[in-house]
Parts: sequence; C-alpha cells; structure tokens
Amino acid sequence: MATEPFQFHDGILYAEGVDLRTLADSFGTPTYVYSARRIEENYQRLVRAFEPLRPHIAYAAKANGNQVILRLLIGLGAGIDVVSGGELERAFLAGAPMERVTFAGTGKTEAEIRAALEPGCSPLAGCAGVDQTRLSQRGRIGYFNVESEGELERIANVAEELGTRAVCCLRVNPNVDARTHKYTTTGKKENKFGLDIRLAPRIFEAWRGNRSLALVGLHFHLGSPIATPSPYVEALDVVMRMIDELQKAGHEVSVLNIGGGFGIAYGHEPQSVSTPEEFAAAIVPVLHSRVEQGLRVHLEPGRVLVGDAGILVTRVQYLKESGAKTFAICDAGMHTLIRPALYGAYHFVWPVAPSSGIVPQGKWPLQNLPGLRSTDLVGPICESSDFLAQERQLPPLRVGDLVAVFDSGAYGMSMASTYNDQPLPAEVLVRGGGMELITPRQSVADLLGVARSARGG
Amino acid sequence: MATEPFQFHDGILYAEGVDLRTLADSFGTPTYVYSARRIEENYQRLVRAFEPLRPHIAYAAKANGNQVILRLLIGLGAGIDVVSGGELERAFLAGAPMERVTFAGTGKTEAEIRAALEPGCSPLAGCAGVDQTRLSQRGRIGYFNVESEGELERIANVAEELGTRAVCCLRVNPNVDARTHKYTTTGKKENKFGLDIRLAPRIFEAWRGNRSLALVGLHFHLGSPIATPSPYVEALDVVMRMIDELQKAGHEVSVLNIGGGFGIAYGHEPQSVSTPEEFAAAIVPVLHSRVEQGLRVHLEPGRVLVGDAGILVTRVQYLKESGAKTFAICDAGMHTLIRPALYGAYHFVWPVAPSSGIVPQGKWPLQNLPGLRSTDLVGPICESSDFLAQERQLPPLRVGDLVAVFDSGAYGMSMASTYNDQPLPAEVLVRGGGMELITPRQSVADLLGVARSARGG
Repeated sequence: MATEPFQFHDGILYAEGVDLRTLADSFGTPTYVYSARRIEENYQRLVRAFEPLRPHIAYAAKANGNQVILRLLIGLGAGIDVVSGGELERAFLAGAPMERVTFAGTGKTEAEIRAALEPGCSPLAGCAGVDQTRLSQRGRIGYFNVESEGELERIANVAEELGTRAVCCLRVNPNVDARTHKYTTTGKKENKFGLDIRLAPRIFEAWRGNRSLALVGLHFHLGSPIATPSPYVEALDVVMRMIDELQKAGHEVSVLNIGGGFGIAYGHEPQSVSTPEEFAAAIVPVLHSRVEQGLRVHLEPGRVLVGDAGILVTRVQYLKESGAKTFAICDAGMHTLIRPALYGAYHFVWPVAPSSGIVPQGKWPLQNLPGLRSTDLVGPICESSDFLAQERQLPPLRVGDLVAVFDSGAYGMSMASTYNDQPLPAEVLVRGGGMELITPRQSVADLLGVARSARGG
Repeated sequence: MATEPFQFHDGILYAEGVDLRTLADSFGTPTYVYSARRIEENYQRLVRAFEPLRPHIAYAAKANGNQVILRLLIGLGAGIDVVSGGELERAFLAGAPMERVTFAGTGKTEAEIRAALEPGCSPLAGCAGVDQTRLSQRGRIGYFNVESEGELERIANVAEELGTRAVCCLRVNPNVDARTHKYTTTGKKENKFGLDIRLAPRIFEAWRGNRSLALVGLHFHLGSPIATPSPYVEALDVVMRMIDELQKAGHEVSVLNIGGGFGIAYGHEPQSVSTPEEFAAAIVPVLHSRVEQGLRVHLEPGRVLVGDAGILVTRVQYLKESGAKTFAICDAGMHTLIRPALYGAYHFVWPVAPSSGIVPQGKWPLQNLPGLRSTDLVGPICESSDFLAQERQLPPLRVGDLVAVFDSGAYGMSMASTYNDQPLPAEVLVRGGGMELITPRQSVADLLGVARSARGG
C-alpha cells in the first residue's frame, strides 16, 4: 500500500512534502491541490492489477481535464476517453496520440464526429498557440463508443463523405444494477445510454461489411462510483454470451470495453469499497481466456485514478453559531464542488492546522475524539444547497483557518461553475516538495469578459 | 394581462415577432432567448403593484447577469442586488449608479468589501476597455445586507481604515417557512443565512453611534420561489414588531428590505402561483402606514422579472425508443440548465414546430391532446442526472427538431457550467421582430484557454 499523499505531520496537513499553509499563502484559496505521485501510483496500480489482460486504459477526461494531469497520464501510457468535441481537442492539446483516443457520449454532433475522423478538421484550426502542422496531420481517433442507431447512421454518413471507415464499438446495456446513486447509474435498460443488448445481433447484421463503418466490439459502462466488482461480473456474464452469439454469426468482435466506474473509499461507506486489486481479482479470471484467444479489453477509469489524488483547500471566512451547531462559511462552495449538493455526496473534511492539534483517525464522519463540535461547512453562494459537508464532528474552527475537502480530484474542478459570479478556483500540482500552479485562479476581469474572457454577457 | 412573449402562430413558436426556427438558424443551439418587452413589462408591473410603497427595487443579478439585461433594467430605474465582488463589478460595467447597488451574501471577503467602499478600488482597475475615469470616481455602494456579527466587524474595520462609514442593514431570520424546496429556503432559524431576529436588539445596541458602521435597517429573504404572499405576511408581523422594539430603544430603522423570492407559474403547481398584484395586495396594507411615517421599503426581485421572459432553445440530436418511452437527446442538458437535476425543477417543454401542428393548451405536464408520446428530454452529458424534462406527453419528435424549454430566464445561464467540456450557450434578446446576439456562443478554443480563454487547465 502506497503512502497517503495527504497526511498530518505534527498536527499540520501536508500534500506530499508541501505544508498546505504555505501553499495557500502562495496561491490563495479556494484551490484544488493534486498529488502527482498519487496519480502515477494509481495508474501503475491499475496496470499491475489488470496485467494478465494487458488492457488498453483510456483515462476518462471528464473526471479531471487539467492539461498537466492529462499529460502526466498520457506519459505513463494512458489513452484518453472523451465525451465531447471539447474533450477531444483537450486530449489533442495534451499530446494524446489520436489512435489512443476513444469517443463516447450520447449526443455527438456531426461537427464533433467530423473532428474525430478528418485529419486537421478541428475548431482549433487557425488558433494562435496551437501547432498547426501537428493539427493538420493528426489521424482519426481509435474508435467511437456508439450509443444509438441514429448515431451509427450519422457516423457512417460522415465517414462516407470523408472516404474513410469509422471504427465503432456498440454500447450495450446489460441491464445490471450498479447500486450507486440514481443520477450516476447508467447501465440499466431504462436510461438514455447505450442500447438494449438484445438488439446487438440485429445491429451487427445490419452493418456487416459496411464500407464506411466497422463494428468491432462491445462497450458497457454501468455507472460510477461502483463499490464492488459484482455488477461487473454480472454484466460480463451477459455480455460474453452476446459476444459468443455474435461471433457464431460470423461477426468480428475483437474489442470489449468494460467502461469505468471503479469506486474509491470516500470514508462514509457502510461496507468497504473494493480496491483495484479486488476489482481485478474478480474481473481478470472471467476475461483471461478470451484475451488469450485475441480479445482486447479496454478500461475507462476516471475517479479511481485522480479522485483520492486531489483535495480542495478552502479558507473559513465567517463562523456562525446556531444552537448546537456551527456554520463555517468558506470561500469554496457548490460552485467549486457541486457533488454534495447534486448527489448528496460525502467528502471527508478536516482543518489543515487544527488549533487543538487534533488529527483524524480516518475519513469517517464521526470521530471519537475530544473537543469536537458539530459543524456545517458551507460556501458564499446564496442557496441553502451551498454546502460542502453537513453535521460533521470537527475541531473548533477559527476565521482564517484552512479546511481540506478530501477526495476531490475527480468531478471537482470539471463540474465547477461561476454561479454568483464567483471566479473559478486555482489548481496546483505537488510533486515531492515542489508545487506547480497548473491553472491560475480566474480573475474577475476574465470572468466578466473584460480584456480576454470566455464567458461573455 | 400582457401578451405572452412566446406564442404559437400557425403551429410555430415565436419569440415576440421572431420565428424561433429563423433564430436557431442564425445563432445555432443551444441558445437562451429573452424577450425585452416581457422584462420591461414585468418590471413595470411590479412598480405599479407596489406603487403605494414607492419601493426601491434592486434586481437580483444572480438570476441572470447578462449585461444587456442589467442595462435594460437599470434604464427602467432598477438598482442591483449583488452577492459577490464579481457581481459588483458586473453591475458597475452595466452602468448601475453605485448608490443603487446593495451587497448581500454570506461570505463577503475583505477585498470584496473594500471594492464596495473605496472609490476606484476594483479588480477592473487598469483593465483595457473599462472606463478608468468612471471607475476611479465611483462612489460606495448603497448598503450591505449583513449576514453575521463577524461580517459587521470586518466591514467596520475596512471602513475605519478607509476613513468612511459603511451603511448596513442587518439580515434577520424571522423563522418563517417559505414552503419552497429545501435547497432554496433561506429564512428559517437553522440555516447559514442571516441572524436569529432575537439577537437584533443586542447587535443594534453594540453598534450604536459607531463612527465606521451605521446600522440603518433590517433585511430578510425567505427563499425562492415562493408561491403565495402568506410567508411574507407572517415574516412582516415578526419583523415589524422588532422594528418597533428597536425604534423604542432609540435606534434609527429607516430601511426595511423584504428580499425577493416572488414565484412564477412554471405550470405544474397544484395551486396557482400568486401574481405580483396578489403579492402586493397582501404586503402593501401591512407596510403602507409605515412608509407614510418614513420607512423606506426595498425589494430584491430576480426570478419574477426575468424567469418567464426567457426560454432555452435546443435541437434534438438523436431519438431512442425504450419501451413505452422516447428519449430525445438534445444539445442542451444539465450543463446548460441545472435546475431539473439540482432541484427536481419543472420546466414546461414543447417542440418549436411540432410536425403534427399540435400546440399546447397551457404549461401543465399532461396535455389532453391526441397523438402524444411519453418523452424524456435529455442532454449529451454522461450522467443520468442530465435531463431537462422527464416523462412528458409530447408530440412525436424528429431528429433536428427544435424544442423550447420555457421559463428559463432566471437561474439558467447564470448557473451554466462547461462540464464535459461543453461550451457555454449563446444568449439572444428579441425585441419586436428584431434579434440581438447578447452573448456569443463560447468557442472550443475559448473553453480550452487557447488564444483568450478564462478557464485554464
């Protein structure tokens, strides 16, 4: 087991070797802080665990699309799983080889499909600061994960027009309950994703030998975060039987993409969350002989690579007592990290330098420690949904204290908004004792479109 | 009753005089479309309804901060209610007289307070394209709505340093249930906003005669949207008794800010939502004699001014049949309009040009019309929470059809994000038969920080 990247030493929280008080003094708050070492470890750990399958691992950029983090993972050998034209260009800018990029998502537009297939056809064409030679020479992506029959037709039409052949996997719904939040369950029959798996034979037959579109495999994604491997095993049973059926009918099914969704332990789970090794221990035996026979297995992890490698550091602006409870009003809120408001998600929180020196024993909500007080960590937004943590037992906070919101590396910054005209936070990467500002804090001028902003109005 | 700004003529939806198919062809989708006439009517209607109180009306910029809309309302005489330093600068850029700007919000930072008090102290100082003379000469804001004792101290400290006197109203919680969503109820005892009203006498006493800070009134805000005037009447009963008590103790209480929150009829409400006239009919009698005696009443409407003046226009990208239901996958989603995912909010939806020519009879969810089909309107985001409307009876949709999401003028664009690297939508203002692009669609280059973006990474 690797060393935790965020640890208390003498009562102070460090990110790798960096005192977070120093980091906050240098870069201000709120700031997302990521551990480069932990991201690398998470990736290598997944590679090792699934080694018998030698999978293609495509990092789900939607979890955290920071360019420096993408570059780091690409450097380790990861491909990129994108779900929009914007993410496609982000992957390109980060240096991803196009053939290692896969394109999922239910709503691909014609322009997005074109950018994925035609060398140099990109919204970045002509943009200053973009290597136009590399852009004009970029190849087509690895393949599309196709979510509907209409999409197959649209992709084939674009490919035909371009005189190329688009490679596709069909996203199927094995109708397995991922047992996660209703908002993040995606593999059941009654949702917008993929196709009822029973339709696969008819669809493969319809596209057999098509000169503009090659169906080469199946894709499924059950949701996220998933706590145990059993939904995958259930789904694989259904999907492998379908692969057999398709192969018997003479179809090439050379790729099986089993999606992402591996959970991480946020700390409040009643049962333990499986480790990558435990997911692999259940999944590898099911697929091993197929891989020996030539099936290529693909994974699309996001949260499990970056989730526990990031924290959000925020500063307490005001304290308010309300009966038995304290409200700590921070400079981060639902605009910075929307998961608590949107999903009721749990993130462990603790002061960076508690006055009492008391440090937590783990990431669970109730700490059996003296002198704690029931505290709501809330933000500056004018909504009651603006909370980061509710009714936690925390050491007494003071105005100006820093608080860390743990396990915020995934779906934190990527879901941030500028609601209430709050500028986007900064992002800092630590590596050993060094810190690198990888996204500068947005300025009010930028936010308002003065000088050089993206958000007009 | 004014003419509806969005109406069907010969089976086609128009915004004032503009065919929305023409508008979508000109500007693409997804696009927020606002009716200038309806915003003006909404404002004038509120002015007329509350005329006996001659209230100061400060538009809540967080509902929709578009510069052109702010200018329109400022031109009609509105002040601006801001809740952050970003909104303060937005109000300034739109030409708001600073003395008509009020500053609310639980998390005001020292820098934000300074910008509100010190002429020319602004994050826009030195920015190209900003009138630096006007900036350096701008005065202090009207007053702060103060949410905590710590904030009073912080404001006083800044004011003392600047040698000025900050004007403040104390936000109190009358402990009234606004009977709205738990996420948007803000006037109860147990939330982060304001102070228990019973603390007001002690706080007014503590700040009596302070040379850096003048407490001149009370503020309350119960939540939003509120369907009927009764929570206001209940709150006013509590608050007026407190004003009496404070005045008896010799305190000046010259301002009463009764907040915002007036609801609008989204169409699914079991009971009818009160009109501005009905809100006024209940509130005016309670306050009229006080106003005659010199009390100044302030309102902070947001939703009621812009909510029904806006629609979101989106285009169907794909259709998927799933048993008895159709999924229409659109180019707008939770990134464009998060209210359905976050609050379970209802927005009426209908195709702009239904093939069958069938037009709705009202904005309610179940239409008693032939040939409808149960439809989920969803977006391109990789989450099951990515929906705009669920299980609605709609005319059959085709790929390429435009769909209007009604009553999206408030808390639509202002809560938008770029999750999944989806660029921010465009905003168009219609006036009579004319259209004005008031926010260009964000480009992928801008989104990715190529050339001139705000969001780095």
